[in-house]
Amino acid sequence: MTVEIRRLDSENFDGFVELLGQFAAYEKLEGPDNDAKLRLKEDGFTGNPKYHAFIVFVDYKPVGFVVYFFTYSTFNAKPTLYIEDIFVSEAYRGEGIGKSIFDHCIQEANDKKCGRIDFAVLDWNQPAIDFYEKIGAERLPWFSYRLNEEKMTQYTWKV
Amino acid sequence: MTVEIRRLDSENFDGFVELLGQFAAYEKLEGPDNDAKLRLKEDGFTGNPKYHAFIVFVDYKPVGFVVYFFTYSTFNAKPTLYIEDIFVSEAYRGEGIGKSIFDHCIQEANDKKCGRIDFAVLDWNQPAIDFYEKIGAERLPWFSYRLNEEKMTQYTWKV
Repeated sequence: MTVEIRRLDSENFDGFVELLGQFAAYEKLEGPDNDAKLRLKEDGFTGNPKYHAFIVFVDYKPVGFVVYFFTYSTFNAKPTLYIEDIFVSEAYRGEGIGKSIFDHCIQEANDKKCGRIDFAVLDWNQPAIDFYEKIGAERLPWFSYRLNEEKMTQYTWKV
Repeated sequence: MTVEIRRLDSENFDGFVELLGQFAAYEKLEGPDNDAKLRLKEDGFTGNPKYHAFIVFVDYKPVGFVVYFFTYSTFNAKPTLYIEDIFVSEAYRGEGIGKSIFDHCIQEANDKKCGRIDFAVLDWNQPAIDFYEKIGAERLPWFSYRLNEEKMTQYTWKV
């Protein structure tokens, strides 16, 4: 079994989008529609890409990926590597592929002088929670909030 | 009372750093030390700044700020405006300054074609939670996790 990790590029983009759909289904969320797929391609390959990704190949077949970008901590004044999505196809779990992906993220965070790696996990995703706690990640006492597109548009102040 | 909102620049940087210290104290977290302050200046004013900020002035005195940056949603394939820090000095709360800051963020999110605005709030910060729920923000079913600098360095796989 050969395992190879490559940066997202125009050649592996279609495999990435296919895995993204599998990932959305696993998370019980709606994945990208056709318009979104076009934007994903544009946004990933501009001079200043809006997101970054590594794709994992096993025997030359794409089986997993990670999407990340750089946020920033004003208190330690260093960038943070933020993992937005991390996924391994069901048939390839338990083979250490998650480890390989995380190794790449740590390396990338060090290269970019990041002070930390942050990520979020759905509260029902116990296998992922167990994995993160085993590698020494700490759960933060934060609630995540969102103002979605509809609310942004209908934005009225009742405060 | 005159209220003015300006982008962070080299003239208002010192006022911003002073407010950041007040904000860290309010959040019971450690604010930037002297080295971090130097990095903040460098990171905020490069050609491709690592964070963005608006500073609020009341009668020409800096009394509040917001720090934000752009993350990305692969499912809707649009940038997200992520609010990292939002703060108004205690003596100026209840005057609608939080509203003005949020108005600016909504405007900025629309200008940059963002699909949503995300933020996190400390679980004990009830006044902020009440405010966010009043403006229609929804709490997400996510846990936030972090691998800090020490854990990144001592990174060993026990999985």
